[in-house]
Amino acid sequence: MNTFGRIFRVSIFGESHGNCVGVLIDGVPAGLKLVHSDLKKDMARRNPGIIGTTARKECDIPDIRSGVFNGITTGAPILIIFENQDVRSKDYEALTDTPRPGHADFTANIKFGGFNDYRGGGHLSGRLTAGLVAAGTIAKKILGNIKIDARLIEAGGNKKIEQEIKKTYTNKDSIGGVVECRINKLPTGLGEPFFDSVESVISHIVFAIPGIKGIEFGTGFRSAELLGSEYNDRIIDRNGKTKTNNSGGINGGITNGNEVIFRIAVRPSASIAKQQETINLKTGKSEKIFIQGRHDTCFAVRIPVIIEAVSAIAIADLMMLEQKVPRVVR
Amino acid sequence: MNTFGRIFRVSIFGESHGNCVGVLIDGVPAGLKLVHSDLKKDMARRNPGIIGTTARKECDIPDIRSGVFNGITTGAPILIIFENQDVRSKDYEALTDTPRPGHADFTANIKFGGFNDYRGGGHLSGRLTAGLVAAGTIAKKILGNIKIDARLIEAGGNKKIEQEIKKTYTNKDSIGGVVECRINKLPTGLGEPFFDSVESVISHIVFAIPGIKGIEFGTGFRSAELLGSEYNDRIIDRNGKTKTNNSGGINGGITNGNEVIFRIAVRPSASIAKQQETINLKTGKSEKIFIQGRHDTCFAVRIPVIIEAVSAIAIADLMMLEQKVPRVVR
Amino acid sequence: MNTFGRIFRVSIFGESHGNCVGVLIDGVPAGLKLVHSDLKKDMARRNPGIIGTTARKECDIPDIRSGVFNGITTGAPILIIFENQDVRSKDYEALTDTPRPGHADFTANIKFGGFNDYRGGGHLSGRLTAGLVAAGTIAKKILGNIKIDARLIEAGGNKKIEQEIKKTYTNKDSIGGVVECRINKLPTGLGEPFFDSVESVISHIVFAIPGIKGIEFGTGFRSAELLGSEYNDRIIDRNGKTKTNNSGGINGGITNGNEVIFRIAVRPSASIAKQQETINLKTGKSEKIFIQGRHDTCFAVRIPVIIEAVSAIAIADLMMLEQKVPRVVR
Amino acid sequence: MNTFGRIFRVSIFGESHGNCVGVLIDGVPAGLKLVHSDLKKDMARRNPGIIGTTARKECDIPDIRSGVFNGITTGAPILIIFENQDVRSKDYEALTDTPRPGHADFTANIKFGGFNDYRGGGHLSGRLTAGLVAAGTIAKKILGNIKIDARLIEAGGNKKIEQEIKKTYTNKDSIGGVVECRINKLPTGLGEPFFDSVESVISHIVFAIPGIKGIEFGTGFRSAELLGSEYNDRIIDRNGKTKTNNSGGINGGITNGNEVIFRIAVRPSASIAKQQETINLKTGKSEKIFIQGRHDTCFAVRIPVIIEAVSAIAIADLMMLEQKVPRVVR
Repeated sequence: MNTFGRIFRVSIFGESHGNCVGVLIDGVPAGLKLVHSDLKKDMARRNPGIIGTTARKECDIPDIRSGVFNGITTGAPILIIFENQDVRSKDYEALTDTPRPGHADFTANIKFGGFNDYRGGGHLSGRLTAGLVAAGTIAKKILGNIKIDARLIEAGGNKKIEQEIKKTYTNKDSIGGVVECRINKLPTGLGEPFFDSVESVISHIVFAIPGIKGIEFGTGFRSAELLGSEYNDRIIDRNGKTKTNNSGGINGGITNGNEVIFRIAVRPSASIAKQQETINLKTGKSEKIFIQGRHDTCFAVRIPVIIEAVSAIAIADLMMLEQKVPRVVR
Repeated sequence: MNTFGRIFRVSIFGESHGNCVGVLIDGVPAGLKLVHSDLKKDMARRNPGIIGTTARKECDIPDIRSGVFNGITTGAPILIIFENQDVRSKDYEALTDTPRPGHADFTANIKFGGFNDYRGGGHLSGRLTAGLVAAGTIAKKILGNIKIDARLIEAGGNKKIEQEIKKTYTNKDSIGGVVECRINKLPTGLGEPFFDSVESVISHIVFAIPGIKGIEFGTGFRSAELLGSEYNDRIIDRNGKTKTNNSGGINGGITNGNEVIFRIAVRPSASIAKQQETINLKTGKSEKIFIQGRHDTCFAVRIPVIIEAVSAIAIADLMMLEQKVPRVVR
Repeated sequence: MNTFGRIFRVSIFGESHGNCVGVLIDGVPAGLKLVHSDLKKDMARRNPGIIGTTARKECDIPDIRSGVFNGITTGAPILIIFENQDVRSKDYEALTDTPRPGHADFTANIKFGGFNDYRGGGHLSGRLTAGLVAAGTIAKKILGNIKIDARLIEAGGNKKIEQEIKKTYTNKDSIGGVVECRINKLPTGLGEPFFDSVESVISHIVFAIPGIKGIEFGTGFRSAELLGSEYNDRIIDRNGKTKTNNSGGINGGITNGNEVIFRIAVRPSASIAKQQETINLKTGKSEKIFIQGRHDTCFAVRIPVIIEAVSAIAIADLMMLEQKVPRVVR
Repeated sequence: MNTFGRIFRVSIFGESHGNCVGVLIDGVPAGLKLVHSDLKKDMARRNPGIIGTTARKECDIPDIRSGVFNGITTGAPILIIFENQDVRSKDYEALTDTPRPGHADFTANIKFGGFNDYRGGGHLSGRLTAGLVAAGTIAKKILGNIKIDARLIEAGGNKKIEQEIKKTYTNKDSIGGVVECRINKLPTGLGEPFFDSVESVISHIVFAIPGIKGIEFGTGFRSAELLGSEYNDRIIDRNGKTKTNNSGGINGGITNGNEVIFRIAVRPSASIAKQQETINLKTGKSEKIFIQGRHDTCFAVRIPVIIEAVSAIAIADLMMLEQKVPRVVR
């Protein structure tokens, strides 16, 4: 399924080298101001323009096709389309029999019986995250004072990020990174004990982003090494403020009023400007391939705005489930 | 919401020190053999009986109340109840004003306006996972040859697990651990590109287990430090077998035919046999508390069977969504 | 699926002659008073005790097993069980090869591959509506001033209902009836234009009740015969009050502030105290059968309280979807 | 919510006089042939071109924007847009303060706080059914041999339909009608006992069509007047064939192998070419209005193809829920 959310519902569609990509957002309250420029700022952050990021420009032009009237949301579904213009499908035509290592070419081919649009990954493309970012922009408008802030805190294991990217770009290779997200001013008591734990809903949508391979909340994997007497966050006031924040602001799946903090692992970009080996599905023999087209040296640099967007979407849906957002905003 | 799944649907209910805990499972195909002893084996693994695990015995007695006729599933919802008998609520009565550090006492109180059953955590208790384990036993029956195997691979940062637990028990403290899960013989092509990625659905249900603070697939967080040329798994045969398995058997959210592997971080047990400090919600003053009752030194030892169960549930639901499990099994 | 609702979620389970029937209700706000006697009154209305209704008494004893603490809902799922005690399964054993006309014996057998519990209809029994009634009692507590009132307005085409039932009982036959439901003090603006139209959600759950074969809103089928100039309800004040109410209080799927009114057609009870003919599934030959056991001459007399219950459930879910019910009630 | 279905999921969007209307369809199996002309034939039936139907032509041009590659479905979501070109919004501008009788102007205004696009009904327009018809065309491709046939069987209470429409057109009034739908070759055993009864899912989506006020299955409302001995359909062969078909091919919510038959009541068109009275929401005074623009004398003539479409959608979703449609079709 290509839909997330129960009340604030986000459905993405489209293909990397097809006609368009986009998003349909249902459950948006009526009365929110929404104009083109609101969407543009977040879209721009998906293209940080530093060395080693590709430059498909069309991502930047969201077209609002429904659900907005006189610059205000109407309560009806909002369709936002990003037309594809800068498409160079020829680059990919050669690769149908030789699935690219690290990409989903092989799995999509199996899953969809060979009927999938394989050009540039088709539907299984990072370009689909454009729709997530647009939906996130709208979700944030519901969240009031809540602050979501994601940053790339290391790339290739190095805290000096630009330097590491430059070196990797020169070597025609790619690197991954770690993104940290901090969410403040969430209402205390958000989330549910089990299947709607804050960790469950955030991790669900975070792993919808292609290329994410891990997530940890608060002290995360290091918490497995601590003693209970070290880990337990001591509550120091009636609002639930804790002295430490090993739990990342969440107890029993529910926000405790402290900062929610999580980190995610982003794998290196699959496409690299180097020859690689794969299998030829027709001949069954090993074959050398070279991936034409534009590559991101470190697509992790695009991820923070996407993480903020999906966090906003997940929180908006939780808040609406918990009756905390009115259907009409004035 | 206390339900997971779209077709194979698992709903948990109950309270730690109330009348019962249990599970309602809908969407189970008709024709599966299901008797009491099938459930007992997995239930026993939740109580490994090593030093430092508590000994509430009633968990072990699942009572099948509907959906099974003559030892065979009927296609109707299956209700399984675990009656609570060994309840010592008095141990917890004292703590209503002084939320236990690391527990959900504070967050549940805020969320449910003080109406929650606070005894032993009430609904927010690890005891609710008894229902997950029972549902998992049934889910596994749908999965045919698929093998799910989870193990505790370290506790308190130490690979010598029993030794570490003993030491911690002696010190009246608690420790966490890391559980690794390997799934083999999954069909290639399971999972969907975005919101139903294998990582999304597994992480969603894994974080429904109280006390999990991180998950990583394949090489996980270490992948953020690798070069693309190191990370990309080279495909070496037409079935998609890869030379390495950094991606953990998943590309683009979809299984690639290799072993699916993930690790989870389990925090230390919140209850420890040591005095701790917290706030008194009535007085607003700091107070010392000592948690009576039974404590798990390392509840991570109970987690493997739960991880296997929730993995089985998530995979069963995905397989049914993808039309891979008949409604009637003969 | 045996679940209705997106936020106020009602799951029914059990078998007519098995261990129990019951209901699991999730999404109930914390803080509602709920004691045994609240449930009893509505349950009693399912057994009006007039001539020609059967007398299984156990329906009347709901057992609240979770989600309530000190007589107040906690926000956790509420499990209510009706134990089966007064079971005479032998009456039905003879019929496994000879499906009863008008019953679901044949369809259940095909659907579930013969694994279904066939005793008294098994899971496909009117007894399952006990759970709906209990859920409805809870739903009504959320609805505040909203008044739902359903009545049997005719039986066997006759407005003199008791007289018609007596006559039919004497003739060892059965009759159907028409139930009319009126809902007042609904908020204006409830419901959505298309798939969540008030008509959609009410008809969905109404047809979940066994034996319902038609529903019409407002003027209903007769509206197909009217002119637009006759049908259109003229608005006569700013609150939307209309002079006539042909639309049954709903325009474009949304309540308009006038009384919501609908009627449903209830078929005659399938079980009659007369010999009937059917096919023997083993021999393929025609065979005469006589249905032992207790019969309802007119089960339509039980339907009003069930219609009120399912209406309350549908409205409660719509109101929660539209952010009109707080998660905690004080 | 503007989405129907659990697996075969249909989401509609757009506004009557906005930029476009359309549909997003998710869960479509890969491998189905889908070209523009497939959609055109059903679209044409929405505009039967008889006297008294309006002539907005743009409905006829579906634009497939995603999910189809080389004329074959890919398994990714299918976006179909109908651009609005023939828009005369001025006709409607005058009416914002004076809600049209029988329309949803008043209810939409209340529900969406006045932020709704009011032009021509905005999102609450019969034009949205264009997307349902397109989704139905695709759904039918999944259903194999199943035959769905809906017909207008009377208009204004008259079986001579064209004659009745002509008369009404001359009188500048409008009329409703009754549509009958017959579905053959459905698999026996489709549908579920309660909330997924065939009646529940069909009525749910049927009432999503604007202007439907009643539905009855089989003998429907007349069944309330029959005796059980008359109503019960006698089974006459091992395949479940019955001598009569009072139940409309459904027992216990499940298909019994006989023809599924239902009838729906369509109200008269709300817009008529006559002066009407309403309230002025600003002044609170009664006011005479005359509705400019194009009117359908009997929009029921458009309904059969829509009923076929929504039936196909509901059945496709049920069949996928019951594991009867493969994810990849070859």
